[in-house]
Amino acid sequence: MITHISPLGSMDMLSQLEVDMLKRTASSDIYQLFRNCSLAVLNSGSQTDSSKELLSRYENFDINVLRRERGVKLELINPPDEAFVDGRIIRALQANLFAVLRDILFVNGQLANAGRFPNLDLEDSSHITNMVFSILRNARALHVGEAPNLVVCWGGHSINENEYLYARRVGTQLGLRELNICTGCGPGAMEAPMKGAAVGQAQQRYREGRFIGLTEPSIIAAEPPNPLVNELIIMPDIEKRLEAFVRIAHGIIIFPGGVGTAEELLYLLGILMNPHNHDQVLPLILTGPKESEDYFRVLDEFIVNTVGEQARRHYKIIIDDAPEVARLMKKAMPQVKENRRETGDAYSFNWSIRIAQDLQMPFEPSHENMANLNLHPNQPAEKLAAALRRAFSGIVAGNVKESGIRAIEEYGPYKIHGDVQMMKRMDDLLQGFVAQHRMKLPGSAYIPCYEICT
Amino acid sequence: MITHISPLGSMDMLSQLEVDMLKRTASSDIYQLFRNCSLAVLNSGSQTDSSKELLSRYENFDINVLRRERGVKLELINPPDEAFVDGRIIRALQANLFAVLRDILFVNGQLANAGRFPNLDLEDSSHITNMVFSILRNARALHVGEAPNLVVCWGGHSINENEYLYARRVGTQLGLRELNICTGCGPGAMEAPMKGAAVGQAQQRYREGRFIGLTEPSIIAAEPPNPLVNELIIMPDIEKRLEAFVRIAHGIIIFPGGVGTAEELLYLLGILMNPHNHDQVLPLILTGPKESEDYFRVLDEFIVNTVGEQARRHYKIIIDDAPEVARLMKKAMPQVKENRRETGDAYSFNWSIRIAQDLQMPFEPSHENMANLNLHPNQPAEKLAAALRRAFSGIVAGNVKESGIRAIEEYGPYKIHGDVQMMKRMDDLLQGFVAQHRMKLPGSAYIPCYEICT
Amino acid sequence: MITHISPLGSMDMLSQLEVDMLKRTASSDIYQLFRNCSLAVLNSGSQTDSSKELLSRYENFDINVLRRERGVKLELINPPDEAFVDGRIIRALQANLFAVLRDILFVNGQLANAGRFPNLDLEDSSHITNMVFSILRNARALHVGEAPNLVVCWGGHSINENEYLYARRVGTQLGLRELNICTGCGPGAMEAPMKGAAVGQAQQRYREGRFIGLTEPSIIAAEPPNPLVNELIIMPDIEKRLEAFVRIAHGIIIFPGGVGTAEELLYLLGILMNPHNHDQVLPLILTGPKESEDYFRVLDEFIVNTVGEQARRHYKIIIDDAPEVARLMKKAMPQVKENRRETGDAYSFNWSIRIAQDLQMPFEPSHENMANLNLHPNQPAEKLAAALRRAFSGIVAGNVKESGIRAIEEYGPYKIHGDVQMMKRMDDLLQGFVAQHRMKLPGSAYIPCYEICT
Amino acid sequence: MITHISPLGSMDMLSQLEVDMLKRTASSDIYQLFRNCSLAVLNSGSQTDSSKELLSRYENFDINVLRRERGVKLELINPPDEAFVDGRIIRALQANLFAVLRDILFVNGQLANAGRFPNLDLEDSSHITNMVFSILRNARALHVGEAPNLVVCWGGHSINENEYLYARRVGTQLGLRELNICTGCGPGAMEAPMKGAAVGQAQQRYREGRFIGLTEPSIIAAEPPNPLVNELIIMPDIEKRLEAFVRIAHGIIIFPGGVGTAEELLYLLGILMNPHNHDQVLPLILTGPKESEDYFRVLDEFIVNTVGEQARRHYKIIIDDAPEVARLMKKAMPQVKENRRETGDAYSFNWSIRIAQDLQMPFEPSHENMANLNLHPNQPAEKLAAALRRAFSGIVAGNVKESGIRAIEEYGPYKIHGDVQMMKRMDDLLQGFVAQHRMKLPGSAYIPCYEICT
Repeated sequence: MITHISPLGSMDMLSQLEVDMLKRTASSDIYQLFRNCSLAVLNSGSQTDSSKELLSRYENFDINVLRRERGVKLELINPPDEAFVDGRIIRALQANLFAVLRDILFVNGQLANAGRFPNLDLEDSSHITNMVFSILRNARALHVGEAPNLVVCWGGHSINENEYLYARRVGTQLGLRELNICTGCGPGAMEAPMKGAAVGQAQQRYREGRFIGLTEPSIIAAEPPNPLVNELIIMPDIEKRLEAFVRIAHGIIIFPGGVGTAEELLYLLGILMNPHNHDQVLPLILTGPKESEDYFRVLDEFIVNTVGEQARRHYKIIIDDAPEVARLMKKAMPQVKENRRETGDAYSFNWSIRIAQDLQMPFEPSHENMANLNLHPNQPAEKLAAALRRAFSGIVAGNVKESGIRAIEEYGPYKIHGDVQMMKRMDDLLQGFVAQHRMKLPGSAYIPCYEICT
Repeated sequence: MITHISPLGSMDMLSQLEVDMLKRTASSDIYQLFRNCSLAVLNSGSQTDSSKELLSRYENFDINVLRRERGVKLELINPPDEAFVDGRIIRALQANLFAVLRDILFVNGQLANAGRFPNLDLEDSSHITNMVFSILRNARALHVGEAPNLVVCWGGHSINENEYLYARRVGTQLGLRELNICTGCGPGAMEAPMKGAAVGQAQQRYREGRFIGLTEPSIIAAEPPNPLVNELIIMPDIEKRLEAFVRIAHGIIIFPGGVGTAEELLYLLGILMNPHNHDQVLPLILTGPKESEDYFRVLDEFIVNTVGEQARRHYKIIIDDAPEVARLMKKAMPQVKENRRETGDAYSFNWSIRIAQDLQMPFEPSHENMANLNLHPNQPAEKLAAALRRAFSGIVAGNVKESGIRAIEEYGPYKIHGDVQMMKRMDDLLQGFVAQHRMKLPGSAYIPCYEICT
Repeated sequence: MITHISPLGSMDMLSQLEVDMLKRTASSDIYQLFRNCSLAVLNSGSQTDSSKELLSRYENFDINVLRRERGVKLELINPPDEAFVDGRIIRALQANLFAVLRDILFVNGQLANAGRFPNLDLEDSSHITNMVFSILRNARALHVGEAPNLVVCWGGHSINENEYLYARRVGTQLGLRELNICTGCGPGAMEAPMKGAAVGQAQQRYREGRFIGLTEPSIIAAEPPNPLVNELIIMPDIEKRLEAFVRIAHGIIIFPGGVGTAEELLYLLGILMNPHNHDQVLPLILTGPKESEDYFRVLDEFIVNTVGEQARRHYKIIIDDAPEVARLMKKAMPQVKENRRETGDAYSFNWSIRIAQDLQMPFEPSHENMANLNLHPNQPAEKLAAALRRAFSGIVAGNVKESGIRAIEEYGPYKIHGDVQMMKRMDDLLQGFVAQHRMKLPGSAYIPCYEICT
Repeated sequence: MITHISPLGSMDMLSQLEVDMLKRTASSDIYQLFRNCSLAVLNSGSQTDSSKELLSRYENFDINVLRRERGVKLELINPPDEAFVDGRIIRALQANLFAVLRDILFVNGQLANAGRFPNLDLEDSSHITNMVFSILRNARALHVGEAPNLVVCWGGHSINENEYLYARRVGTQLGLRELNICTGCGPGAMEAPMKGAAVGQAQQRYREGRFIGLTEPSIIAAEPPNPLVNELIIMPDIEKRLEAFVRIAHGIIIFPGGVGTAEELLYLLGILMNPHNHDQVLPLILTGPKESEDYFRVLDEFIVNTVGEQARRHYKIIIDDAPEVARLMKKAMPQVKENRRETGDAYSFNWSIRIAQDLQMPFEPSHENMANLNLHPNQPAEKLAAALRRAFSGIVAGNVKESGIRAIEEYGPYKIHGDVQMMKRMDDLLQGFVAQHRMKLPGSAYIPCYEICT
């Protein structure tokens, strides 16, 4: 079966040179990524969430970029039936399909041409920020003049049912206050707040609801956007995705999750504790149901004991009180607005928050890089937070990521030169996560992948 | 706690004379009905569905109509907390509250004044129809120029989970085809299609979704509108509610239900088989999951054997195929449009369908009325359908309604003068319902409340 | 040529009983009025402004009310060609045609039925006000929640070119401040501000411009609405028209005119000086070009010398400064809003301003009524203003109106029992108008139609 | 006086790198052009049309590009008072000011960076077309999915009053048919159709009226956009402006004008007679009042006698019949739509019409280029039309443009090697224009600036 699909929402107004560029890019080595992401989007109506199963089930799926006088079309060969209603593609999938085209082919094509981003230096902090801005603007995700109302929700993708229902209740309360939601667009804590908010907004007759899914190529195939996502944006890599979250957020909520969630919190503290950001207004709430209390207590203690008591100034922990979470977020919005106005900043994109260049660049957890981490208290808190985030990131990799595990097998545990006390606490934290079943580890007993050299 | 609420959507533009009339009506004997319906609406956010429990829990709730220079306000005394978010009433509840004011106080006030309905003769068929129209227009439920897209869904309010999930699937398929939903606004088959359609419409980015809840005073207190209902309309009684369903429907779907559902089908056949309605286009589909097949088979047989084979021209039974149901409805819409255009009829209100005066008038199942029913085959099919509907209605009353049961206790079973064969079949049908657990009867063994005198 | 026209904007949702009532009313003695007003509206594209010429040119024009299943249609027989573009009626004319149907047939039909206005007592002040409200609401002229922005402009319909251009300049300045215009919908000072405002609003990209023409049956035939009028409303008589002006105005501007304009000013003073209206905020500006300075000076002196110095508190005279006029109006709008909010009054209809019953009732300038006017200073200023307005009205009638002239011929001049000084001043004022060519009198020398009996 | 102005409509969402680029560009040698165009726009409220007078009156006017966190602002120093209402800039001027910033600074900045137009080869026909598209898209002038409705109107900027009134009548008729207008945005025939269309559209309650002014830097200073222009676009040069006209037009009307108008007609014939454009649907009407009949007759004869009878296939001359002109345009729109659909072309931009590269490139009327023109009949008609257009362009320059006159003074008349007959006719045509006072020539007697060498 072959179908031709016209643009919806994105890419509906291309010049012929741009279409030519797209066609060229589509047949380059980026094709496989483009094809798989497109397939994932087309499949988001179905219930299968396994990326592998998906790919094998639709081996004969193919997608081509066609040039028409008026612009671009997509040719789908053997697409999933579920994507269509009476022969017409479901509009949300159509829009998301062109979001993939836009963010994967178009952005890459332009980067290749050094096109839209002249003289771009991707090691330069301000250039990275400008690129993040350009991708979001190109996705029409930045609305001029709209008052602050966007809450970014983070948390694990495989939370338990209790946590899921709690996250949905928080979402309902946010929706009842006409706040919009942005998440990483996967399942679990990334889906629940959207589901809740849709109901809350409907009760308030609020029809402009925005459900932004901010993802990256390596994730979208495994976690297709749920049907509520009405703005899909694919950032080039995890660091730009994190920066995009921070710059479009008017508030951030962290639900329980695994170590990844803890790592994200350290990333945020690395930003918020930066003295340049002293006057930023960005409410940050950690919340979960009663049974998640322990998770947040342990995390909180770890942070206070490493980064220091002053870190607490930047976040608030609320246990089992969904209305209170939403109330605080709603109350903060006028302050966010006032703060943006005072600094002359945009409501839709936080230009003025400083993200240090080392938080913008990817961290490669090689043995050498891990050995060189500065994990001592004698440094600015934001530097320590950033360093801890990296150590964390490395340890997680050593525990669960394929490349990390292989590296450990080959070279032995990471040698970390850090403060003894601090390392002890990190160990405790991870052990706690193990005990709470928040880490899917290969064996049953946790064998540390690092060694502390004091 | 006392709060004042301004009009939303309805009643936002009243003259001072009208407000005075409202105040007078509110303090008349209609007050209790008005107060209870308002309380039910305010409580629709909560999970309790028992009307009694509700009323006793909020005994100190009170509501007053206030006159302001600019129009009307409502004063709520001790309203349920759940109706408010940070001190502001939830907008859907605010709108529904004024729908209650509009349809209960305003309509009654005007009737009392013979106001908006001059020279109204409520036994005159065309006057009844005009009143139904006026109430719907006053509720702004009739949209000029909107192409046919409204599917009325009927069915039991206490269906099993399988049937519920099936009705929701049908709703999703209707929503994916951008069809709107009108139901009786209660739970079960009246809620499921709306839930499904909301998701289907969201996937199509269809933001104009209409979820019309068409109810009546005696029902709203027990079955508050679910949060998805964005147009609440309260018709004065069951007959006008049924007429409203038929005149605003562009298609009707009947899900499984109890005897009430069967009675509704007979009401519809009484209309559709009327020779005056020969050229009407009103698709009617009976549908349910696999396990409901029996229910519809038995019903179908009963109808064929009583009203006759030609009844089948007016409905189609589809088992366990939600997409097919929605596809047929969608396909019929242009035919409905064409038919309305040809007859010069409105898209939003079917003026030309003939509803015989005896279907518009309430039927009182007294022993005398039951004895006088003409249940013989030697009459026009539509007459027979209407008579059967009444017999049905009476037998149901004799089985389960308080007044009916008392009458039976006092005077013995109804004496029905009908065709033996026909009565036998009615008996079988009811026995079938008993076997399928679709009748909540006082005892375990079904004792017929009627006696056939041939 | 015969054409059928569907409703636009008004009357697009009628019940069949209402259509029947319309048909009956259309064939009653009101038909001629309905037909002539319709013809006038259809002809507003053309350049002829003489009502007589118009009627004789289209003697074979006819109009019928048709009933369709879906509602009403109008049948036009031999309508003016200019009303059509490629066989389709111009939309503004279509809307205005149904405004005529609505305000002439529908309102009359309902009055006849005592329909929409139950228990209506048309001598009762509050009932009159409610009727004015009902007509405006029925015309959808009252917009809930819209902030005050409506400026009523009065003035002569046959002003000179200089005055016309000035009124247009004032209109442009009002439009540049996004204010809307309501006038009597004729030529001259009733047209110029709309023309100007349309340009000013366009420059501000303001697309919601409202140009309300408020007329009455006896005037519309002579003065068809100009093409800019996008809301045409026909009030039953001059008193209700004046009341409608006052209650929907958020500010009033009076341009130069004849005696009629002076009469209107006295009507306004009769209201504004009423102690009940002490707290009303209703800016009133008298303005004209340099050459109109005299007109306003003479008028101002007359008022101060009769009604008293305190009258000046209620108006401001601005000569030859269009931006200043608009600036003051714009500046007053937040005060109007605040005042309405404080008193709980609607923004779109000033319920709280008191209009004494004697200003609401028509004044018949018979010799007896004229003789009984109380034109002495020893009474409340607002009473005197109202009495002077009547004297004025009578004298104007005696000068120029057919019935008045005939009465004078038959019974001799009106005998007025008034204060000598005051009568002298009225005489001077009228003589001034004569000198300024603002009165079209039969002969050249002005012969007073009244006689003062002191 | 210093004011800061925020973006409206354009440039409201810039990255900081883009603002930096703008600031750099603004302080480059392009500054003077940017400043003068901005001044012209700010002055368009006033009545002075002389560019020189304007510049000298506001010698102390200055404009700066400011960078704010959120994007760009403009600083105006001593701007004309008329651009402001109560201290706030008029919105149309604000929008046009940022259109200047966009089309002059931004486009130039990007070209300088080879930014948005990678690998741009400005001699390559398809690259030129893509650039025209990019500028129009960047100006948001291309609306996806809007059905064809845009009529381009050409004609002289100094036509007489009769012709002006006629052009306005045509505009009214176009507006009554809900067609939009695009002109060169100056006075005369560029203003009249917009004025008329605004009235016609208002009568049809059409609120989406588009009045596109398509200009170029060298013209905007002399001819500021009139207040009706709601989309101002400044193309880099006359050739790209002409191409933009042709590609966004759904129909073209040519009113009487001077030689420039005749030159434009030849440009169009050079395109329409190109065999590649055989299937294009682009209605072209030449029209004027009765008294312009001669102008069009002479022009028509010249074309038939040079380019050939078949040229007439591409245009229609209509004298003194405004409704007929509009009717034909309206009737053609569905054909334009059908044609675009068939060829897969966009409704908003005609990609498929072929404009030969020599029509896209500027023609420099040097003596050498004029001598090398091929003005013989033995060539394809479209080539001859293009050559004639150039000869024409040169002769006009030799007559009236400063550079041309100087060249003639220095080197004597142009030597043209052309067909005798053809040259004779060109001579006649120009003489005719002289006689009709359509050429403002320095002396009274027309002295040809060319010499024919056969």
